[in-house]
Amino acid sequence: MTSKVAVIAGVGSGLGASLARVFSGQGFKLVLAARNVAKLDALATETGADVISTDVSDPASVENLFHAVDGIGPLSLAIFNAAGRVRGGIADLDPEEVKKALLVGAYGGFLFGQQAARRLQATGAGSILFTGATASVKGFANSAGFAMPKFGLRGLAQSMARELAPKNIHVAHFVIDGGIASSDPVRSPESTPPDRWLSPDAIAEAYLAIHQQHRSAWTWEIELRPWVENF
Amino acid sequence: MTSKVAVIAGVGSGLGASLARVFSGQGFKLVLAARNVAKLDALATETGADVISTDVSDPASVENLFHAVDGIGPLSLAIFNAAGRVRGGIADLDPEEVKKALLVGAYGGFLFGQQAARRLQATGAGSILFTGATASVKGFANSAGFAMPKFGLRGLAQSMARELAPKNIHVAHFVIDGGIASSDPVRSPESTPPDRWLSPDAIAEAYLAIHQQHRSAWTWEIELRPWVENF
Amino acid sequence: MTSKVAVIAGVGSGLGASLARVFSGQGFKLVLAARNVAKLDALATETGADVISTDVSDPASVENLFHAVDGIGPLSLAIFNAAGRVRGGIADLDPEEVKKALLVGAYGGFLFGQQAARRLQATGAGSILFTGATASVKGFANSAGFAMPKFGLRGLAQSMARELAPKNIHVAHFVIDGGIASSDPVRSPESTPPDRWLSPDAIAEAYLAIHQQHRSAWTWEIELRPWVENF
Amino acid sequence: MTSKVAVIAGVGSGLGASLARVFSGQGFKLVLAARNVAKLDALATETGADVISTDVSDPASVENLFHAVDGIGPLSLAIFNAAGRVRGGIADLDPEEVKKALLVGAYGGFLFGQQAARRLQATGAGSILFTGATASVKGFANSAGFAMPKFGLRGLAQSMARELAPKNIHVAHFVIDGGIASSDPVRSPESTPPDRWLSPDAIAEAYLAIHQQHRSAWTWEIELRPWVENF
Repeated sequence: MTSKVAVIAGVGSGLGASLARVFSGQGFKLVLAARNVAKLDALATETGADVISTDVSDPASVENLFHAVDGIGPLSLAIFNAAGRVRGGIADLDPEEVKKALLVGAYGGFLFGQQAARRLQATGAGSILFTGATASVKGFANSAGFAMPKFGLRGLAQSMARELAPKNIHVAHFVIDGGIASSDPVRSPESTPPDRWLSPDAIAEAYLAIHQQHRSAWTWEIELRPWVENF
Repeated sequence: MTSKVAVIAGVGSGLGASLARVFSGQGFKLVLAARNVAKLDALATETGADVISTDVSDPASVENLFHAVDGIGPLSLAIFNAAGRVRGGIADLDPEEVKKALLVGAYGGFLFGQQAARRLQATGAGSILFTGATASVKGFANSAGFAMPKFGLRGLAQSMARELAPKNIHVAHFVIDGGIASSDPVRSPESTPPDRWLSPDAIAEAYLAIHQQHRSAWTWEIELRPWVENF
Repeated sequence: MTSKVAVIAGVGSGLGASLARVFSGQGFKLVLAARNVAKLDALATETGADVISTDVSDPASVENLFHAVDGIGPLSLAIFNAAGRVRGGIADLDPEEVKKALLVGAYGGFLFGQQAARRLQATGAGSILFTGATASVKGFANSAGFAMPKFGLRGLAQSMARELAPKNIHVAHFVIDGGIASSDPVRSPESTPPDRWLSPDAIAEAYLAIHQQHRSAWTWEIELRPWVENF
Repeated sequence: MTSKVAVIAGVGSGLGASLARVFSGQGFKLVLAARNVAKLDALATETGADVISTDVSDPASVENLFHAVDGIGPLSLAIFNAAGRVRGGIADLDPEEVKKALLVGAYGGFLFGQQAARRLQATGAGSILFTGATASVKGFANSAGFAMPKFGLRGLAQSMARELAPKNIHVAHFVIDGGIASSDPVRSPESTPPDRWLSPDAIAEAYLAIHQQHRSAWTWEIELRPWVENF
């Protein structure tokens, strides 16, 4: 696999940015998709990435994103890092917000995964990586509006993994089981005990390790959590 | 719990009809929801049920269904048996059909579950039961369009179970792990070996057993499969 | 299946006694196995059961138990309710106690299950039920000495389920996910909130329901927990 | 963590040897434990490892192994790669062989893990890695004699992970979900399609990646399978 072209959906200041940096550092040409691209100028400059404003729940918008990818070269890596969520008790949730969370978090994953799969099937190689969460594998009180899209995305990823593995395409799902360190004071990297929040760079290294796995020993799912996290 | 009023969504000739018969036999007054009610006349007569044409993916339609329930008495049991599915390889699936499957199979479960939860929280008792499938817990090749809604529905059910159990409301999820016997010749009850297809009446008995569980020993999930089924 | 002969291993004052009463009430002739049979006089009288002193980790003792069963009639139900456990941090556990827990809780299940399987394969019908716990599916700090035998027993049960189901023998595993009400003041049935501890009679009813399942809709595993229990 | 001392139990010609080579290549001083050390001369020379004849199911033998480790330096990595197994239908298995499989595969893991935990708790850092298999998470027909120890080992590993993570000790479990390439003609690395058997070197690289994970993003379990393997 000589092509090094990656598309990442759901890029802001957190994990998406770390993923961009890690894969840029490995020589990948990047296309970054975000709902709001205004804040991505510095990252684009740093990583040499193209940035495309994208609504992952809109088929035309996702197609447009991948046309931009096609302009750069044959795709070899696609990462779906977007999420939809709404929090609240089952009786109180707003149906329109739940619908939107589902369409962004699960349907968006499908639209993105379908475009990626078509391209990787054509070249016969590559990886498609999906970002999950604790809510991908456990439903909690007040989390129906997050568990529903996240469980759904996991079902999509597992189906794709089973379909595409024999076609030499590696699909993997990451269960991020804890809070990610951020500029939010509550999640400061300087919190004690140290490393109590997931370092986005450490997560991105795990994505890289999975992408680089030899095909005789592929992982379909990996969970990541801080040393101090209950699970 | 003296009230015996049940609403069942997703009633046709199979499991939904067996559920109606079993709970009718237990003295429940029933409201049955189906997309196509034309074929339910005989079942309605047999079980004394009201039948309401319902699109479970439409909030107004689901509200309308539950208003009909309210006219009969305080709800004590709600069963979501509707499903959305579309089959095919990831590259070939039609996005509109996938979206519809997701909105019927997962979002519809949310709309139905929300209306039920509001009523059961008001009375402080009752059960909400969700019909799942093998695809609720395993993604297979060509099943992304079924696994995505079914995984999502399971995430919803688990979240609701954890939120509502301490409120004395029993939420349970049924993993129907095999084909259900039907009038389709391939799935005839007379197939050999005998009982190789799930009897819809036997499944309905399991729903009854779970509904009747003592609250000190509630089950959140149960899987059912024929004796000859691999798992 | 006309024979109603059951053997239950691991009978004391709790779940084992409730199982004896429930199945005795269904017309079963019973053989009860316990390490310490001194306290079982009243239960034996009440249920008409034979009581056999048994060390489930000793092949000869388990054979002896099943010879006693053979004297009553063809076996149709076998329940393994014995457990081995030792609690403590990994560094502090006594190896001899861990070994004993493993031999009673897992190896004992094998010896018991093997004898039961031989008899049920000869008649071509029946059930083998295994009592599990939260520790069967989750390892916690300080629980290695319980999780190891309980996970092992679950692996045994699942293997037996897959092997024996096509032979018309129903193997099921019960995950008792919470504390069982008992004469211990802490676990009094009169605790508040009511029903916060699993009623052993309610659990026994679940065993009966699983044993009575139609073979087109068998359950391999069911978990039971109080309405107020986190999971 | 400056010390680089590792102990690996269960070393023969396959994965154990690859683990020895990979960690030797990272500068680790190694102690290798095997039941039969006669064939390890070449590996010992190649990796500079000490080789200790060990019966992992014997407490004194495992203590002796770790005394040898102590003579080299502070332990930082312990890998349990030994396995016990016996194959056959439940009715046909030899109880003595099943007992031995359980004592080697599960109890041996405990004895090894306990010695490792004591040393890593003293230094406050390090990793303990356990080799699992498909049989660790799924019981199949005729596999009770492998599933029982492997499920048990997984329960041990999960308990240890939860207890030791907050003490800065990383415990992880590897589900090797497929056959490992070997000198056995059936599992030749030259089989077609290529890479259909797990490369032991590729597996060993995964152990290294897990050992090197940043503690803010630790994995407790990872599964590895060939691209052509059903799962």
